[in-house]
Amino acid sequence: MIFTSDNWAGAHPAIAASLSVHSTGFSPAYGASELDRKVERSFNEIFGREVAVFFVGTGTAANALALSAVSRPGGVSFCHHDAHVVADECGAPEFFSQGARLAPVDGAEGKMDPIKLEAQIARYPREFVHAGQPMAITLTQATEAGTVYQPDEIRAISKIAKAHGLPLHMDGARFANALVALDMTPPEMTADLGVDFISFGATKNGCWCAEALVFLDPEMAVQVPFIRKRAAQLFSKSRFIAAQFDAYFKDDLWLDIARHSNRMAARLQQGIRASTHARLGWNSDANEVFPVISKTLAKTLMEKGAMFYEWTPPSSHPDLLGEDETLLRLVTSFATTEEDVDHFVALLG
Amino acid sequence: MIFTSDNWAGAHPAIAASLSVHSTGFSPAYGASELDRKVERSFNEIFGREVAVFFVGTGTAANALALSAVSRPGGVSFCHHDAHVVADECGAPEFFSQGARLAPVDGAEGKMDPIKLEAQIARYPREFVHAGQPMAITLTQATEAGTVYQPDEIRAISKIAKAHGLPLHMDGARFANALVALDMTPPEMTADLGVDFISFGATKNGCWCAEALVFLDPEMAVQVPFIRKRAAQLFSKSRFIAAQFDAYFKDDLWLDIARHSNRMAARLQQGIRASTHARLGWNSDANEVFPVISKTLAKTLMEKGAMFYEWTPPSSHPDLLGEDETLLRLVTSFATTEEDVDHFVALLG
Amino acid sequence: MIFTSDNWAGAHPAIAASLSVHSTGFSPAYGASELDRKVERSFNEIFGREVAVFFVGTGTAANALALSAVSRPGGVSFCHHDAHVVADECGAPEFFSQGARLAPVDGAEGKMDPIKLEAQIARYPREFVHAGQPMAITLTQATEAGTVYQPDEIRAISKIAKAHGLPLHMDGARFANALVALDMTPPEMTADLGVDFISFGATKNGCWCAEALVFLDPEMAVQVPFIRKRAAQLFSKSRFIAAQFDAYFKDDLWLDIARHSNRMAARLQQGIRASTHARLGWNSDANEVFPVISKTLAKTLMEKGAMFYEWTPPSSHPDLLGEDETLLRLVTSFATTEEDVDHFVALLG
Amino acid sequence: MIFTSDNWAGAHPAIAASLSVHSTGFSPAYGASELDRKVERSFNEIFGREVAVFFVGTGTAANALALSAVSRPGGVSFCHHDAHVVADECGAPEFFSQGARLAPVDGAEGKMDPIKLEAQIARYPREFVHAGQPMAITLTQATEAGTVYQPDEIRAISKIAKAHGLPLHMDGARFANALVALDMTPPEMTADLGVDFISFGATKNGCWCAEALVFLDPEMAVQVPFIRKRAAQLFSKSRFIAAQFDAYFKDDLWLDIARHSNRMAARLQQGIRASTHARLGWNSDANEVFPVISKTLAKTLMEKGAMFYEWTPPSSHPDLLGEDETLLRLVTSFATTEEDVDHFVALLG
Repeated sequence: MIFTSDNWAGAHPAIAASLSVHSTGFSPAYGASELDRKVERSFNEIFGREVAVFFVGTGTAANALALSAVSRPGGVSFCHHDAHVVADECGAPEFFSQGARLAPVDGAEGKMDPIKLEAQIARYPREFVHAGQPMAITLTQATEAGTVYQPDEIRAISKIAKAHGLPLHMDGARFANALVALDMTPPEMTADLGVDFISFGATKNGCWCAEALVFLDPEMAVQVPFIRKRAAQLFSKSRFIAAQFDAYFKDDLWLDIARHSNRMAARLQQGIRASTHARLGWNSDANEVFPVISKTLAKTLMEKGAMFYEWTPPSSHPDLLGEDETLLRLVTSFATTEEDVDHFVALLG
Repeated sequence: MIFTSDNWAGAHPAIAASLSVHSTGFSPAYGASELDRKVERSFNEIFGREVAVFFVGTGTAANALALSAVSRPGGVSFCHHDAHVVADECGAPEFFSQGARLAPVDGAEGKMDPIKLEAQIARYPREFVHAGQPMAITLTQATEAGTVYQPDEIRAISKIAKAHGLPLHMDGARFANALVALDMTPPEMTADLGVDFISFGATKNGCWCAEALVFLDPEMAVQVPFIRKRAAQLFSKSRFIAAQFDAYFKDDLWLDIARHSNRMAARLQQGIRASTHARLGWNSDANEVFPVISKTLAKTLMEKGAMFYEWTPPSSHPDLLGEDETLLRLVTSFATTEEDVDHFVALLG
Repeated sequence: MIFTSDNWAGAHPAIAASLSVHSTGFSPAYGASELDRKVERSFNEIFGREVAVFFVGTGTAANALALSAVSRPGGVSFCHHDAHVVADECGAPEFFSQGARLAPVDGAEGKMDPIKLEAQIARYPREFVHAGQPMAITLTQATEAGTVYQPDEIRAISKIAKAHGLPLHMDGARFANALVALDMTPPEMTADLGVDFISFGATKNGCWCAEALVFLDPEMAVQVPFIRKRAAQLFSKSRFIAAQFDAYFKDDLWLDIARHSNRMAARLQQGIRASTHARLGWNSDANEVFPVISKTLAKTLMEKGAMFYEWTPPSSHPDLLGEDETLLRLVTSFATTEEDVDHFVALLG
Repeated sequence: MIFTSDNWAGAHPAIAASLSVHSTGFSPAYGASELDRKVERSFNEIFGREVAVFFVGTGTAANALALSAVSRPGGVSFCHHDAHVVADECGAPEFFSQGARLAPVDGAEGKMDPIKLEAQIARYPREFVHAGQPMAITLTQATEAGTVYQPDEIRAISKIAKAHGLPLHMDGARFANALVALDMTPPEMTADLGVDFISFGATKNGCWCAEALVFLDPEMAVQVPFIRKRAAQLFSKSRFIAAQFDAYFKDDLWLDIARHSNRMAARLQQGIRASTHARLGWNSDANEVFPVISKTLAKTLMEKGAMFYEWTPPSSHPDLLGEDETLLRLVTSFATTEEDVDHFVALLG
């Protein structure tokens, strides 16, 4: 009953097996191997066009290099108030982009409110050097709140981005979970809605360490080889990432894993809704679930072997908790079983 | 007959197996697992004291974060003219340390000449703000020239470091190869000679992606958790690095691999010395060998399936090559076989 | 009737005269002249202890170097939501400190609310690397809202700073205006209340270009000579700044100028209070005044020769303006005359 | 007899007077005044085209922002081994450009040798990410050795710059001295020879603090307003710089001052050549002179009131000094008199 995080799971057996298979023999280093090339072609197929793909080691690296690639002096990127990029990366995006700022935007359930986004952008009038200048918008899909931006919601943000000439980044640490939640293809969830570049995460979805920075227009990426190398994110035995992606994409394993995780989350939500001792803080669409329970019950659950994090209510839900209540975050992954879920739900009572 | 680089090999079977073994089950993320702890204890044992260990993804990351950890405004680090840190890291050390400079020091066969080191340091008089200020010395062990600093040579540099109050860093991308070449223990090759912190490389010596930044005095490392996270080098499923190190250290596998690689390099050198169509540019001690042959022979070797890089003669050997000659770099690894070596030597004629 | 900003005025006649006097003869460059030494002694006297003083060219430089001097990796400084350092410096503080973040704190009338400050700091728990780490608190005295922190208000913030081990910075772009408003001495307004270092501004108060970064404990400033030079803020003909400060401090000219400016602002406030067509957005203590008037009247004022900026109501006063109203910012300086003030007030009607 | 540096002189009387004249009255801050506009037009006239001009506070700022404006990730700029930008700016250029490196190029008498420049550039092959990538060439005119690049010498470097697609920067801290030494116009010494942007220094030539960054093609400068503000180099009372430049350019004062300084230097050289106790290390063209004398004589000169710096022989003249000899640097300025020169020469004997 471990619901702490999808990164507490190890590697999916097929990913582990692929690493073993590819561990023998020689191949060119620094991303020049046949296997690297093959995976790059997979990315082209998945996104329905020739994209520029850069493997990196962490989601933080993908996000930080993404913003660094579109950085401007005095630049400001706009993200949700609770986005990973601003809340959980120890300032890496600012560090990598010479101090370019992240301006937080409020919005319910992890999604930027377009009106508040416009208001934030308006604080940086064009050519008013004192304030700085807008440089990018970044949205997280699926969000940190377990929700998923609907196509129209992305379109609304993308429209703002285009109006201000700003590139639109998608932090896809849980890209696959969002994709299967929306039942869309990658181009439908990105290019068709105006997304320009993506932090494509696979680690949380069954890999060890496989993240990619994907530019839908390779022209945007001309300097990224140097940006990545200077950032110490060019791996010598790059095929160890390629081998993971190779198995990840084979026979749509990535989508199957995401469907499983989302299903386990839905099953958790169903159980929580049915419980008289728990309620959902809000509905989620992907593989994170946020129930409200009593502090006493939380303690009991832990004593009975459930593991999870207690979570700070988001700024959009300041009055979520009653006096003796607490908010939990439950995360599912390829390694979550129905038994775990049902056991947890049974403990809720 | 692939001698291009030790990073063209994949992972040693025992390393690959360890990854498979540890791929199942849940464990705390971001370096908090039992396995992470166990490997940290291994590092303590290996270095004979309590050290501060930080796993990172690349050797460039280890070097850049090391120098960043001792950075000063207007700082200057001293390294050999051909050191990886200045020649092959796309400016990562400067980038991570707010532009702190790398001042190249000449010296034969990849080793800094202590007299030239002193002369370089003297260009930055204490409190002369215009020039900047010394901040560290970094030496590469084994060197990029396949040689190994002898204990007295490290001691001479360490003495200079202490005299100027500078921390002494060792880029140990090929730490194991140097260690077995000298037949020393890690404390003998580091702490006892005045080394303060080490980029401890395992990737080139049979791992996929396992590098560590080791501070012999944990007090030096107080800010490094933040430096690493901000640099996007804190891995969520950190046990994938721990699992590699676990196998690496088990039953001294790491030393066995290094001994094998060095032995293959020695066998190559022996063959080259014996050949009438080749000579050694200089003698090497570790797993890189630098023969001089005719351009015609180089072409023939390639046509017969040998793979290697042609190398620029180091600044210390400007007149190394005759008119139609070329310098090769041959690198051995766990995956190099006696057959490969003998076949190559036979082709030399 | 120019109330746009105190930096629209030129130099006070005594400052201009001092520059002329000191323009002849030779003297050591880069801050080593007798005059530089003399002014440094003046700072010691003013602050009642031996301080470390660094001349810089702009207030932004003073603030950015101040925070850079106490920077930590993943660091976060806390400031008021509308502080110059976060709102008007194009990201200079983040740029100079490797991306260290500025976390805005709300509070009425330009002053940080201590409870909200604590809440913001609490978002960065000690040793939780993902969030980053607190590194400083910076308050602006006088504030951007024309108000002045009372001694108890500074003490409350200072107490929080000490509790968290954070250095307390004072952005004193209008230091003199605050000082005379409170009728305190510099030690009383800084050291005695727990302030550690100060951006000491003189430009807005009658100089051309004379700003200083003052550390009450010189030990804090050991690296600042290098930080300043690396930041391109070490002036060769440094005596041109020293000459300004020399006149500035002579016979308490600086306090006289500040008293005059504050008196002009008080006179403006008096007139606004008396007017039936204007009201004060809030009361101010120093040399900035914020009246609310109708848009029609604002237009008329401009047509009749008054110059000022229309201002965005602060987040603490969201409902300040009626439908056809606008907020003005009026700033006074040494160059503001009673005639200007009275003329403006008369135009209000 | 003060020959230490041209920045030991104060301000030329006409510059000082202009500051006084412009010290009264109000005018828009941050470079928006009429006087700022007027000086910008003067720059257009001087360079014979519409240029983009940015006032900054120091020569180091001009150089660092210049390189920062053309920065690339992993970038490398090429400069003479003894250039101010690499030897005397405490790493400011690296700091401002995210660690972009300065690669020193050897050459006699302060001028880059084009063959050695090509060799340095060749160390960074296109798209070899490990080494980094060339980003600019910067030459100093007049050089730190008191010499001046002849038109053909600039053309040779410019040709290399164009061949590699690199912008060519001129550090003109002593621009005027070079100009009058060559008897050329600014366009002839810059645009016509392929120079793209210039650090235009006036401080050493009689101003207090007046430096400008000039882009011959304003398109190159689109981001510079933000780069300058973020670097804390946008002055509020900007007219204090404009007032200096206004007097500087009026009736060609700047050229007259430079001619005077150069003439004083020539007179010094003449005296040194005639002396039996001194010789010139090399011939210089501008306002710095480098005589070799005995250490005993140097001591005597100082005792008799001459002030100067003893200088390290440049790498191009390693054997310049006999056993008891020393190299002096003598710098002249607007404040140097014939009497000073003749007195000094007389003391040489």
